[in-house]
Amino acid sequence: APSLAAAHTCFTDFPAPDVSLSRKLGAEFVGTFILIFAATAGPIVNQKYSNSETLIGNAACAGLAVMIIILSTGHISGAHLNPSLTIAFAALRHFPWAQVPAYILAQVSASICASFALKGVFHPFMSGGVTVPTVSTGQAFALEFLITFNLLFVVTAVATDTRAVGELAGIAVGATVMLNILIAGPSSGASMNPVRTLGPAVAAGNYTVIWIYFLAPTLGALAGAGVYTLVKLQGEGEQPREVRSFRRYSDCLKGYTLMSANGSVLAYMVWLGWIILSFIPLLEFDNPATIVGI
Amino acid sequence: APSLAAAHTCFTDFPAPDVSLSRKLGAEFVGTFILIFAATAGPIVNQKYSNSETLIGNAACAGLAVMIIILSTGHISGAHLNPSLTIAFAALRHFPWAQVPAYILAQVSASICASFALKGVFHPFMSGGVTVPTVSTGQAFALEFLITFNLLFVVTAVATDTRAVGELAGIAVGATVMLNILIAGPSSGASMNPVRTLGPAVAAGNYTVIWIYFLAPTLGALAGAGVYTLVKLQGEGEQPREVRSFRRYSDCLKGYTLMSANGSVLAYMVWLGWIILSFIPLLEFDNPATIVGI
Amino acid sequence: APSLAAAHTCFTDFPAPDVSLSRKLGAEFVGTFILIFAATAGPIVNQKYSNSETLIGNAACAGLAVMIIILSTGHISGAHLNPSLTIAFAALRHFPWAQVPAYILAQVSASICASFALKGVFHPFMSGGVTVPTVSTGQAFALEFLITFNLLFVVTAVATDTRAVGELAGIAVGATVMLNILIAGPSSGASMNPVRTLGPAVAAGNYTVIWIYFLAPTLGALAGAGVYTLVKLQGEGEQPREVRSFRRYSDCLKGYTLMSANGSVLAYMVWLGWIILSFIPLLEFDNPATIVGI
Amino acid sequence: APSLAAAHTCFTDFPAPDVSLSRKLGAEFVGTFILIFAATAGPIVNQKYSNSETLIGNAACAGLAVMIIILSTGHISGAHLNPSLTIAFAALRHFPWAQVPAYILAQVSASICASFALKGVFHPFMSGGVTVPTVSTGQAFALEFLITFNLLFVVTAVATDTRAVGELAGIAVGATVMLNILIAGPSSGASMNPVRTLGPAVAAGNYTVIWIYFLAPTLGALAGAGVYTLVKLQGEGEQPREVRSFRRYSDCLKGYTLMSANGSVLAYMVWLGWIILSFIPLLEFDNPATIVGI
Repeated sequence: APSLAAAHTCFTDFPAPDVSLSRKLGAEFVGTFILIFAATAGPIVNQKYSNSETLIGNAACAGLAVMIIILSTGHISGAHLNPSLTIAFAALRHFPWAQVPAYILAQVSASICASFALKGVFHPFMSGGVTVPTVSTGQAFALEFLITFNLLFVVTAVATDTRAVGELAGIAVGATVMLNILIAGPSSGASMNPVRTLGPAVAAGNYTVIWIYFLAPTLGALAGAGVYTLVKLQGEGEQPREVRSFRRYSDCLKGYTLMSANGSVLAYMVWLGWIILSFIPLLEFDNPATIVGI
Repeated sequence: APSLAAAHTCFTDFPAPDVSLSRKLGAEFVGTFILIFAATAGPIVNQKYSNSETLIGNAACAGLAVMIIILSTGHISGAHLNPSLTIAFAALRHFPWAQVPAYILAQVSASICASFALKGVFHPFMSGGVTVPTVSTGQAFALEFLITFNLLFVVTAVATDTRAVGELAGIAVGATVMLNILIAGPSSGASMNPVRTLGPAVAAGNYTVIWIYFLAPTLGALAGAGVYTLVKLQGEGEQPREVRSFRRYSDCLKGYTLMSANGSVLAYMVWLGWIILSFIPLLEFDNPATIVGI
Repeated sequence: APSLAAAHTCFTDFPAPDVSLSRKLGAEFVGTFILIFAATAGPIVNQKYSNSETLIGNAACAGLAVMIIILSTGHISGAHLNPSLTIAFAALRHFPWAQVPAYILAQVSASICASFALKGVFHPFMSGGVTVPTVSTGQAFALEFLITFNLLFVVTAVATDTRAVGELAGIAVGATVMLNILIAGPSSGASMNPVRTLGPAVAAGNYTVIWIYFLAPTLGALAGAGVYTLVKLQGEGEQPREVRSFRRYSDCLKGYTLMSANGSVLAYMVWLGWIILSFIPLLEFDNPATIVGI
Repeated sequence: APSLAAAHTCFTDFPAPDVSLSRKLGAEFVGTFILIFAATAGPIVNQKYSNSETLIGNAACAGLAVMIIILSTGHISGAHLNPSLTIAFAALRHFPWAQVPAYILAQVSASICASFALKGVFHPFMSGGVTVPTVSTGQAFALEFLITFNLLFVVTAVATDTRAVGELAGIAVGATVMLNILIAGPSSGASMNPVRTLGPAVAAGNYTVIWIYFLAPTLGALAGAGVYTLVKLQGEGEQPREVRSFRRYSDCLKGYTLMSANGSVLAYMVWLGWIILSFIPLLEFDNPATIVGI
């Protein structure tokens, strides 16, 4: 039945409003607990047991956890598990802003619970699986931006576009997380998620450049979700004289219509290239010293 | 056609009552044999061939075995493969209590057969793939509890909730097993299953703290299946004045209705947090000495 | 349209008779070429590049190859790729005996072509990826029997039983091959397939105990396919007084009807246990010396 | 609605002509950027962090990237990501020649952008993930030919044949890429793709035998797509007297009809064997010296 929440929802393939918020938050809490427990256990086990986990084992921990959580709770809460993702979906009007604080609260609580549970079961838990850059701050920022861009590009495609392969969404998103850790794990820790960094930082008392892991994933998530939406819209708005023929969700996307109507191949490439290249001046090009955290 | 077995079954997506018990037990025996053979072979090969298996190889052995058994026998016996799972499903009325003893007998027989087959084909079979903690007893108990919680949360979601992605059930459950071994393999052996521990213990004559592997997985399984059921019910019972409008399987779940009607976000979090934190006092915080078994 | 081939085919979910034999053989040749090239390249690369492949890499080579070949040619030829599988399917009347010689000829040709291609592209190709036991002959025989049993149990389930998850057949069978190499790779080479052994043996001129790899996989394949058929039939024959109500393919399976009608839980377990235990006296229990081939 | 593009399109299971070219190019740019970034990051991380990536990690980087890009952009642009694939599809009339230059331009731009982004975020980026043979030039050429043959055989099967398992296309193609890197990574770099080689070569200023990586993948792609088409056609043309009864796309394939009508098992085997064996004389059989690039 239509409710307050429905007023904020434009896509019919999202959880229907009859799913109560408390149930969603319960699923979000359990899901985020499992994710943070698994993704942080990898580096801890690796340190405790003489590199037995290996990089691909660490990557598999987080990727498999994301996959199984999406397959088991995706139909309840959407399985965000990540404040950056929740914010990006809200910004693109795929999720009601009114529920954002509650989701983030559940994610933060789960992250801290999971980190203290790890402290207990793996005591002494070494550096505690914290994500600390081994490269320059600028490089870590750029890496976290790029991998979260990649993550949200895929998530938006499989979650919002009915023409994409929604049934395989859990596999696609889990694979993206695994890939991103293979790329950025030894450099920035491949957090992609403020609560992946927050909980372990609290449990270990190590807050080194923690702001990177709050800001870069959120900006990357907005960019990734936005670029996918642009690529999709470009096709919808191919005939700019007939923008009125958009499908029913066009009302949600008025903000992008003008951009889309004027869009062109060059616009995409220039815009995306600009995002990437604009980070290169930030880079400090200092030599990575030691590998910490993974 | 309705039969005696049907009286115990509330969910229509479970094996229909026309599947004979002896056929189910045959499938359960073969499935458990393959699982125990594969999951125990990993650590044995690792010890015999100078760590060639690696942790992720051990994890893949058990995860792939679970996946292929679910895909090939899930439609016959449900592919429990695990007394803790059988008990948890019976407790939640997803499986008839009357069949529990026969299932456990088949699982135990298969486990012992597989372990002696391994003793023959890999002789000398080293420590025989037994699961013995390398951390404190309390930590091993907590780890086995947590990973079995995780396993049953996922199993209950993909097996009982028609809104979850049942077709990918084999992949989801196999991935959960693989993940759990990546997390807990070097610490507790990541048994999750009394018969994963029992058979190899008999074949190797090593019964070190075997009670952990009987008790913790069973409690974890009950908690994991219960929490998923609660999360699901919370949504169903959102409007507590209309509990009579529950779907047809509500009769099975009367015991949970009151809990659900009073449920709230806080209740979930407090309850779950309590479970986890209640184990931390148990932990003895002794230093892990050596890695045994994996 | 009904043809000569149809007279031999009882299961409607197999390639329809309008698929010409020459097309099937072309697909079988290309598929087996890719499989033998991939599965044999793993050990060769491992030897040439200082153990860079690792056991799980070798396992992934063969498992991924089987998966992609089933997904791309399964609808044409059934993607047997293995004389033992072809013989087992023919014995269980899932495949016409008249086509067996042509299939085996295509498989053998492809195996030899692939092995000589490897000799060229990886020259010097070290021990050439041959499968030679590092354990006793009896142990290698038992291992090859057991892993091929496992393979055919899964293949028969996903290929012949419409209630199993046929769409995921490629994934299930590829996973089984990967699992079997993780179990038996360092011991027996985990051939499971006479032509996996034959081609590399010819190219490298190394025929050490090659008879094991012809006999054990074929016996294991017959046992695995047979046991799955028994487990399935037991359910069908639950009410032995009404065996006439079998589905239309019952005519193919008359030979098993009596066995099924008298079947019981004990029969399964005793029979299977007998198979496994009967190999243990064969074992010579000599100590494995060195790892060859993988 | 029918358009100019439709005149070039014969297969109805390809992107419909109402998908605008600029949208396709946007998706192709983002997809190729993610692929080249991921596939090249693997070897760079491996060099920077003392072999932490391992061969299977490198293989997973590229395979997972291909999979997630197909799942997220396959419905928009077809996710070619590879000039050799674009050319092979155009040659087999699965893709309009008129769009080939724009696709290749997008792929080349994305490759160069991704390589310079890697240079920034991983500075110093060591040998930069370039693909340089460690075996003889002839061997590298043959390997690149064979693995691209394998790739396009699978891609053509899952993308063009409605009887193959199209839903799993992303998984099948990703698995093929992963397999090919496990086979050829340490020898030729397992490029399979001119733009996988071009961008990193430009960023690192290393153009060693770059022509191999332009020519061999393109020839391999044509052969792989062609052989699958032949195998498929053979079945269609089984009764050569009735070639007029071909399905509607037969007009596209007139060029192959005669070949198909005369096709036979021997023709396949001789032709394929000839392709493979014709490369062996090229091989110089020099000893591989050192491993470069991976």
